[in-house]
Formats: sequence, structure tokens, C-alpha cells
Amino acid sequence: MSNDPRKHVVIVGGGFGGLWTTRALASADVRITLIDRRNHHLFQPLLYQVATAGLSAPDIAAPLRHILRKQANVEVRLGEVVGLDAVARSVTLADGEVIAYDYLLLASGATHAYFGHDEWARHAPGLKTLDDALHIRRRVLTAFERAEASDDEAERAAWLHFAVVGGGPTGVELAGTLAEIAHKTLRREFRRIDPSQAKVRLIEAGPRVLASFPESLSEKARAQLQRLGVEVVTGTPVGAIGRDGYSLGAEFVPARTVLWAAGVAASPLGALLDAPRDRAGRVRVEPDLTVPGYPDIFVAGDLASIQQANGQPVPGVAPGAKQMGSYVARAIRARLDGRTIEPFRYVDYGNLATIGRRAAVVDLRGLKFSGFLAWAFWLAAHVFFLIGFRNRLIVMLNWSWAYFTYQRHARIIFGGAGEDGDGKDDDAG
Amino acid sequence: MSNDPRKHVVIVGGGFGGLWTTRALASADVRITLIDRRNHHLFQPLLYQVATAGLSAPDIAAPLRHILRKQANVEVRLGEVVGLDAVARSVTLADGEVIAYDYLLLASGATHAYFGHDEWARHAPGLKTLDDALHIRRRVLTAFERAEASDDEAERAAWLHFAVVGGGPTGVELAGTLAEIAHKTLRREFRRIDPSQAKVRLIEAGPRVLASFPESLSEKARAQLQRLGVEVVTGTPVGAIGRDGYSLGAEFVPARTVLWAAGVAASPLGALLDAPRDRAGRVRVEPDLTVPGYPDIFVAGDLASIQQANGQPVPGVAPGAKQMGSYVARAIRARLDGRTIEPFRYVDYGNLATIGRRAAVVDLRGLKFSGFLAWAFWLAAHVFFLIGFRNRLIVMLNWSWAYFTYQRHARIIFGGAGEDGDGKDDDAG
Repeated sequence: MSNDPRKHVVIVGGGFGGLWTTRALASADVRITLIDRRNHHLFQPLLYQVATAGLSAPDIAAPLRHILRKQANVEVRLGEVVGLDAVARSVTLADGEVIAYDYLLLASGATHAYFGHDEWARHAPGLKTLDDALHIRRRVLTAFERAEASDDEAERAAWLHFAVVGGGPTGVELAGTLAEIAHKTLRREFRRIDPSQAKVRLIEAGPRVLASFPESLSEKARAQLQRLGVEVVTGTPVGAIGRDGYSLGAEFVPARTVLWAAGVAASPLGALLDAPRDRAGRVRVEPDLTVPGYPDIFVAGDLASIQQANGQPVPGVAPGAKQMGSYVARAIRARLDGRTIEPFRYVDYGNLATIGRRAAVVDLRGLKFSGFLAWAFWLAAHVFFLIGFRNRLIVMLNWSWAYFTYQRHARIIFGGAGEDGDGKDDDAG
Repeated sequence: MSNDPRKHVVIVGGGFGGLWTTRALASADVRITLIDRRNHHLFQPLLYQVATAGLSAPDIAAPLRHILRKQANVEVRLGEVVGLDAVARSVTLADGEVIAYDYLLLASGATHAYFGHDEWARHAPGLKTLDDALHIRRRVLTAFERAEASDDEAERAAWLHFAVVGGGPTGVELAGTLAEIAHKTLRREFRRIDPSQAKVRLIEAGPRVLASFPESLSEKARAQLQRLGVEVVTGTPVGAIGRDGYSLGAEFVPARTVLWAAGVAASPLGALLDAPRDRAGRVRVEPDLTVPGYPDIFVAGDLASIQQANGQPVPGVAPGAKQMGSYVARAIRARLDGRTIEPFRYVDYGNLATIGRRAAVVDLRGLKFSGFLAWAFWLAAHVFFLIGFRNRLIVMLNWSWAYFTYQRHARIIFGGAGEDGDGKDDDAG
């Protein structure tokens, strides 16, 4: 391969950013190596549905090789980048392989951040990967089982207290869906506990939920959450999180399930670069998405920090990553042709967040709506954008079924917890 | 609950045996506690489809609570039985809870047996639970990735050698489906390796595959396997299995993926009883499925050893477990009414095994057929028996899709391996 005359584009990360670049280079005279730690592209906007047992893991993921099987100029490599030599222009994988590049795109996304409290991670899992989602699913389903098995009133209450930290879109989705599970899905399935007595609390340190939306929609979201049975606490940060509960202000709250949706940090790959980064570890890129001083290295998606014309940062959402991905492909094509290219410009088509059954908020460039209509809009948009026809069909089917029956078909505990019934494994505790 | 005047039936295991007893006691004047280590009933006959990425885990599993939500006389308990006091008539769970019974059914099934070579377990995983299936899926998919990433000819060949040990129904299904994946599903998705060069070998120590079928069908099965590209080796036991391969006769065969479908041992719960057991650890039960000397303890399913009228053992298949389960319910009802009951009699409706796409063998009380017709019959029977309407629909859809496209939608690696790209984790090695 090394005497291939084509320029070699190495893309790290098969999320929206990396995949959109790859596909937009299908007809370009380059060879592409797409490297990912996982074998699949993940439709992250629906990850909370896997965590809450509404969808199976394979429903929202597609093998990268399969998506790209017909694109002859791309080679998919399962592996983890651990080194970057910007002078020699190569990356090193964990298995020792060194891969040279002419152009490099870093699009490895983001991970959770616990604001310096990494010890909270094991007690309050976050939601970024399929493994995270299955872990959360296991925790939530196991909590109801433990409550049913317990004879102790206080212990039972702690198993039935679900706290979600962080009032952004992920936190709102999780809290809304947990309330639906407790109040509808599991109703009548237990004999000793009443799942609808479960407490679902959404905790946001700032003054309102969905802070990236207009204030009126934050208010609507809060009202919809409350209607679904979620207790919304704003203006109060969580003080500490342990195995048995969390503290809120001066109060210690016994709770065995705390989910983390509060902080995001860029992938550690950004630190391999000698380049300026923002507080969340995102690389501050040039207007053409290259790294300052390294014109052959691009950064896209959640790993990139860049401002819109209005001074606001480009938000860390799927459309932003896709637009950056497509832009990087155009920039590489321009470079190959010796052309220059206009700076990246983010087109904001709107902002949607779902809250739960028949509840969502939508802000389309000032056109705001909420409730059932917003939910239907959100559903259509998300199913439409799901990669692969088959997935779309199955997801629609699952959702129609769930809608009419309140059932969630993926309520299956596997992978670790639940294997032992002693209630003492840290994983579930 | 303890002053409930109804007799207490404790059922250990929510597989075919335990679940069929539970349901058949719906209208009986008893209270039932169903204990399982897992929260779901598993449709084990399709487990190999999860292992080979054709179905998602939730497609073939349903939460026990959900199945039984309308049966008011049953309480479902997630837990593991670790003790049994046949004098005090109680079982002890791993979390310390002691549950007294009037009638006890042990139906905890079977697990793998490595014939005294437990060290083979980590190198040659078996297939009994959803976790097993996901582990095998991960191993198989990762093997192709490792082969693609390797520059070493011999190493590559070892990653592309798939050996299945044991020529019973599970081994035949796994080998046939692996061949389909290598030769059809993955074709065109890799750039350096040709997946159709993968070697799939089925190894049976005895003289023929599917030994429980008539000889003519074993021959058909062998021919169909070979047509699908499986190398069938009979009459030769595997000598040793390690991380890098296995030995067959005097030869050491480099192979990174060995799957175990050779030996079955009864669940260790049988050992809690002071009762005669067969070589596989199954409890030798009385004609009414009770344990000799303990008329209030029943055993059903794979944990029970009992002979048919013709002297043959009742086979360890789903219909056998279901029939035993229904019988135990009848026996308990008879006991409550002070009636006696005829001995258990197994009705053999026939024997089917699938081999792969359009390939199966069927023996319906002497009416034998194979090939496409047998496959269609097998498919219809299995989808029909899947618990829950929703699952059936989704499984049909998945299969129709897979049939026409050769695709397998669940080719998603998660849970451990694949996280690191160093090729050194033992899990995938």
C-alpha cells in the first residue's frame, strides 16, 4: 500500500464527524483509513432508549464495515490511537502499528466529566457508549428487583430513588423515560412494591433545565417533566455521590441509582496535540477546522471548539458534527486541487429535545412548540436520520408497539449484575 | 404471607420446565414463588442466532415478571438458591433469605461440562445463557478484525480458523451459521483478508454428527454442512485446547476461536440433594418426577434423569422440559386433591435440527426429510413457539431481511473486547 500514489487520509473516529467525512470523500482520489475503537457507528441521539430498555443495542448501531462496504477507497481498522507524531505525520495504535497520513482527522468525540470527582464515576454512570447504556439498563432494572426483595422500608426506598444529575437533553430524556417505566411499564408486575411509588428526581445546578433552549421552552419542559412524575430540582448542585446516596445542599439523600448527565469532556486524543484547548479539553481549531500550526490535521465533532458568527460556540450535537465532517471532506478536496476554501460555517436548523411519551420541545429558528406535536416531530426526525433502512423499520415497529402497550421489549438483564443475588456487588450498588 | 392458608409452591428456574409448571398452576389454590438468577425466560433453541449476530438478545428473551404479570398467585424473585434444607423444607438464597416451601420444584437446567478440563472453559466458551451468546458473538466478530489487522500470514490463518467442538444440534447450528457469515455475510467488507477463506471445522468425537437422529439424517446433515463450507471431522476427539489452538490426534492446529458444544452437565443445584444422580449430575427421579425419599421435591427439565417406556432417556430438549413442567403442575394439583397420578410419560413428537440457510433435518416419528423443506418447517415451528407476539413478529422480520440480504443486523461488538486494540486481551485470545 505504501507505494500507492494517492494521498492517505486517516480518520480517527466513526461517529457523525468521521463517518460524514469518509462518505463525502467516496469519489475523491485518496485512500482512507478509518480507525475506531468500536466496530460500529452509533446513533447516539437514541442511546437513552437502549439505556431505558426501549431499544436493543443493535437497533441503533451499524457495523462501520457494513456501512462502507461499497466504498472502495476506504479501509476500516478496529483499533485505538495512542500516539501521534505530527512531525513524522503518523499515528500509533495500541497494537503497535504505525500508520502514516497525509491528512489526519481527529473526530473521537467526547466522554463524561465528573468535574474532578472521578470517584463518582462508579456510583453515577454516564451515557456515551452502548456499554454505558447496557450498564445503566442493568442498574435500573436491578434496582426494582432489589427493592422487591428487600424487607427493610428504608432500603426499599433507596432502591426506588432514581436521581439524574444534569438537566441537559440527556438528563431530561433519562428522567422522563425512567418516570414512564416506573409509573406505567412496571405497573402490576411486582407483588411487594408499587413501582409507581418510585421517586425520579432530575437535578440541575443551573437555574433551568435545557439551558440551550429559550426560557419559555425550559419552562414547558419542566412542566412536562412534572406531569410525567419527575421531581425537578434546579439551582442546586450535587455535593457528593457515594454508593448509598448523594448529598444535595445540607441533606444526604439515600439513593442506589444515580445517573450522570452533567459533564462532558473531549476525548483524550486532543491532548496528544500541542495545541490550545478549552476548559472541556476541546481543541480550539482554526476557521477551516485545522489545528493551529498543523494545517494537515483537522478536528471535527465534539472534539473541536469553534465559534459561530454570532459568537456562540457550535453546539455539540449531531448536525454540528455532520456539518463539520462534510466540511473537512470539502477542505481536503480543495487542498488536493490547490484551491482555497471559505471558513466553516455552522447552519443551525433548530434544536429539539424529547422529554418522554408525547412530550418534547422544539425550537426551529424561533418557531417554538412543545407537547405532542413536538414529540411527533422529534420522533419522525430521529427515525428518519437513523442509518440503514432496516434499523429504521425495526425502530418504528418497536416504538409503535411500545406506544400502544407501554411495554419496553429490552427489559433483559445481562452482563454481570443480576448473576448473583446477594445485593452486595458494587456494580449494582 | 406466612399465615396465608394456601400451600406454597417454590419453583427454582424460569426455563421451560419451571415456567410451564408455573403457568399450569394459574388457577390452582396455591401461592407460587418463582426464583431465577436471571430476570428473563430465555428461548434457548434460538440462542445460537444471538451468538452469530442474527438476533438481538432481547429478541429471544422476555422478562419473567412480564410473562406472569396477570397470574396473581405467583411472585417472581430474582435470586440464586445456594442452600436446601429438605427436613425443614426451605431453600436459602444468596442474599440470606430463607424461603419455606410445601412443594419444591428444581428446574435449574444444565450448564457446560468440559470432561474434567475446566481450564478449557476460557479458551472454548460454551453456549447456555445470553451472556455466553454475546461473548461468543464478540469473539467471532473480533477474530475477523484481528485477522484484518495482522500482517503475519500464520497469525492471520489462526484468527480465521473457527473450530466447533461437538456435533450435536448446537454444534451443527453454530458451524453452519459461522460458515454462512464467513462466506456470505462478510464478503466484500474487508480489504486485506478474504473472509471466505476462513476455515470452519466441526469436530465430533463420535462416528457421526446429530447422533440422536437416524443415521440417514446424520449423513444428510454432513452433506449439507459440507455444502455450506464446513469441514466435518468425526471419530476424533479434541486432545487439548489452549489460547493459540487445539490438538486433534497428533496434530496441533493453530486457531484463535474454539467454541464448545460438546458436553452438558446438570446444574449444581442437584448436588444439594441427598439423591442418586447420573454421570452428568442429573437427579434420577421417580416415575412421578419426585426425588427418591423426598415426595415433596420435584425435578424437571435438564436437571432430571428419567427413562421413557422404550428404555431411552427423555432427551434434554424443550418439549421434554415443557411436558415435565406441565406434569409437575398436574401432580401437585392431584396431591392437593388427595388423588394419585399416573407416572410421567414423554410424548415424542419428533426431532428437528437446523444446519444453516435452507438446510435442516427433521424426523417426525419416522417421517424423515431434510433440506429446504425441513428448514422451512424448523423455522415455522421455532417462530411459532417463541413466547410473546411481539418477539415473533420482530424475529420473522429479522429473518426475512437476513434471508434476502444475507445480512445479520446484530454484528455489534460490545462488552469488553474490542475496547482495546492491542490484540492481547485474553478475552478475545
